[in-house]
Amino acid sequence: MPPIPAVQESAQNYDGHHGPLIDLSQAVPGYPAHPLLLTHLQESARQPELLGYGKIEGEPTLRDAYAADLRQVYHADVSDAEVHITSGCNQAFVASALTVAGPGEKLLLVTPFYFNHESTLSMLGIGTKAVAAKAEDGFLPDPDLVKAAVTPDIRALVCVTPNNPTGAVYPPDLMDVLFDICVERGIWLIVDETYRDFLPGNAAQPHRLFQRPNWRNHLIGLYSFSKSFCIPGHRLGAVTAGRDIVMQIAKVMDNLQICAPRPPQCAVAKAMPQLGDWRDSNRAEIARRRDSLEKVVSGLSNWQIASIGAYFSYIRHPFEGSASVDVAARLAAERGVLCLPGAFFGEGQDAFLRLAFANAGCSELEELSVRLA
Amino acid sequence: MPPIPAVQESAQNYDGHHGPLIDLSQAVPGYPAHPLLLTHLQESARQPELLGYGKIEGEPTLRDAYAADLRQVYHADVSDAEVHITSGCNQAFVASALTVAGPGEKLLLVTPFYFNHESTLSMLGIGTKAVAAKAEDGFLPDPDLVKAAVTPDIRALVCVTPNNPTGAVYPPDLMDVLFDICVERGIWLIVDETYRDFLPGNAAQPHRLFQRPNWRNHLIGLYSFSKSFCIPGHRLGAVTAGRDIVMQIAKVMDNLQICAPRPPQCAVAKAMPQLGDWRDSNRAEIARRRDSLEKVVSGLSNWQIASIGAYFSYIRHPFEGSASVDVAARLAAERGVLCLPGAFFGEGQDAFLRLAFANAGCSELEELSVRLA
Ligand SMILES: Cc1ncc(COP(=O)(O)O)c(C=O)c1O
Ligand SMILES: Cc1ncc(COP(=O)(O)O)c(C=O)c1O
Repeated sequence: MPPIPAVQESAQNYDGHHGPLIDLSQAVPGYPAHPLLLTHLQESARQPELLGYGKIEGEPTLRDAYAADLRQVYHADVSDAEVHITSGCNQAFVASALTVAGPGEKLLLVTPFYFNHESTLSMLGIGTKAVAAKAEDGFLPDPDLVKAAVTPDIRALVCVTPNNPTGAVYPPDLMDVLFDICVERGIWLIVDETYRDFLPGNAAQPHRLFQRPNWRNHLIGLYSFSKSFCIPGHRLGAVTAGRDIVMQIAKVMDNLQICAPRPPQCAVAKAMPQLGDWRDSNRAEIARRRDSLEKVVSGLSNWQIASIGAYFSYIRHPFEGSASVDVAARLAAERGVLCLPGAFFGEGQDAFLRLAFANAGCSELEELSVRLA
Repeated sequence: MPPIPAVQESAQNYDGHHGPLIDLSQAVPGYPAHPLLLTHLQESARQPELLGYGKIEGEPTLRDAYAADLRQVYHADVSDAEVHITSGCNQAFVASALTVAGPGEKLLLVTPFYFNHESTLSMLGIGTKAVAAKAEDGFLPDPDLVKAAVTPDIRALVCVTPNNPTGAVYPPDLMDVLFDICVERGIWLIVDETYRDFLPGNAAQPHRLFQRPNWRNHLIGLYSFSKSFCIPGHRLGAVTAGRDIVMQIAKVMDNLQICAPRPPQCAVAKAMPQLGDWRDSNRAEIARRRDSLEKVVSGLSNWQIASIGAYFSYIRHPFEGSASVDVAARLAAERGVLCLPGAFFGEGQDAFLRLAFANAGCSELEELSVRLA
């Protein structure tokens, strides 16, 4: 059974006597989409021009709007032709993986990994190899370990920053080093930046890689509109890559589903230039939630924040030696707190639970001090 | 380059001097979606409950409505739990293929095949083997050839009925025989019925396979909401299969894109029970278009209908020995008629062109008598 539904089922045993369920399991923004976007969604849903098949690579308006966003965030020269729209970021990953690797080849993941990366590759017959990011290193991968792991069967290194599950934010300098390793070894760096709009602090640029003159030969950027625009139900994501890769991804996408759903593409394209302030205020709100969680957990003697970042916190639970799946199931059933067990994210993760704190308001998070105690 | 964009490009050379382009290339209904459906689409697009992630298997309301449709069309007992919603029928095929086969295994296709089936399998590292359906057999596969082709590496037989590209409708008796072969050999029968709502004649049931007591162990049915409801831009399809297969497909879908877009699912669920008469009238309109095309082509001495059916006609062009790609490109550039070359659908198809006559109104089709002459 896929991880999220499996966990959601365990909440059915909760009898509610500590108050309403606090759901920190799936990463879904805990605030509503902007009314302007909703209006655009509504308008585009019945537009006759959008009922037919669309361009495989995406609606020109959204490729345009997203390229403009990239130029602003990364201070880099990215064109609409270097953007491919997908039906969510999971699909962006599937398409990228199929583009760079085939059966018998391997991708290098960083453990703890985003579980769908691992299950997707295993489903496709693409091998995986893991480099451990250790708690004592702030869950950042050690470049020397990465270098040693890039054997000739490896086609790409996959990073998630800000990270799922740990929340760790990879510093720009580390990203430069990882990119250099990929260039040197002639492989791809696939960077999943689903949470990049929630970087703590004052919107510093996430990394400088799109400024590198050779990025088009080694970098594939993945993005999700689900979290930043609060519309996971509409399914939109994007790949940023050189034109050659975009063309290969178009072939994959044609097979996978011809094109992403068109009406939400046009709606988001219209909304993007209008919602800059709103996105900033969400970033600030999520920072407040992070502070709330941090305060709560530091007040509990036997729980410990192993990592906290842009959307998630990775927490060391007090039940040393217990399977994290059991701990998560008990937390759900006995305390009405839904989170994901570390074991979902790879080997050696049983000491941890992932809390998607961005899903909950500050007062809900403060409730945790009672429930976790 | 994917086939459809490649052909559409060749139309850019047409100077318009025979009148507007007649586009019979991609299969898109040539009439608009129903206003009721458009209203539902508009309403559901901004519904807050549909903004979050949905159930992987699909919205309960659509699984329900589509199962009811299946019960009515096939006079068979199919439940909502035996339906998995996807983002279009291409994705339904991808998910089914990944469910029944892995790298190194093979699927058996019938030539001429739907090109995305072939390209999808080759992309996934799943092998293909082809059984030729011959013009002299009405483009129906010969069961003896099928039987002989099922070697131990074959995991499924893939059929498209009504067929793309030929339009051929597989008779229920033939479907029974093909199913029996699959049962006997312990493989799956994957039936793509994207065009089943356009069966000519009085809506006889397409086949009796869902009435077979063991269908859940051998049959996977694929469907598209794109053509029947005129909403390809919204991306919706479905798989019908036993619960075990639905559960496996859910694992694949979770990786591919978590769930199909939710708002159109709810809109179509509402519209299905309301649009029975409208679907019937579309079937009748497409039958009229078929008659128009038939009349036009029979009036031309050097063009010949090799097959005509539910949505498509497969036409033998007069330029014997020429590559069908060149013939199609000249037709587009010199006569403003866009269709697909036989070569897109497999080996030995160069004598043919595919005309998606359902895309055009009767008067447009009558125009062909001048353009093709
Ligand atoms: C790291 C990461 N990548 C991709 C996704 C999938 O996002 P989408 O909804 O765009 O498919 C998620 C969703 O949780 C995620 O955490
Ligand atoms: C036989 C067949 N299967 C599947 C599809 C894809 O349909 P959808 O739009 O549902 O992905 C088509 C579209 O032309 C088709 O002809």
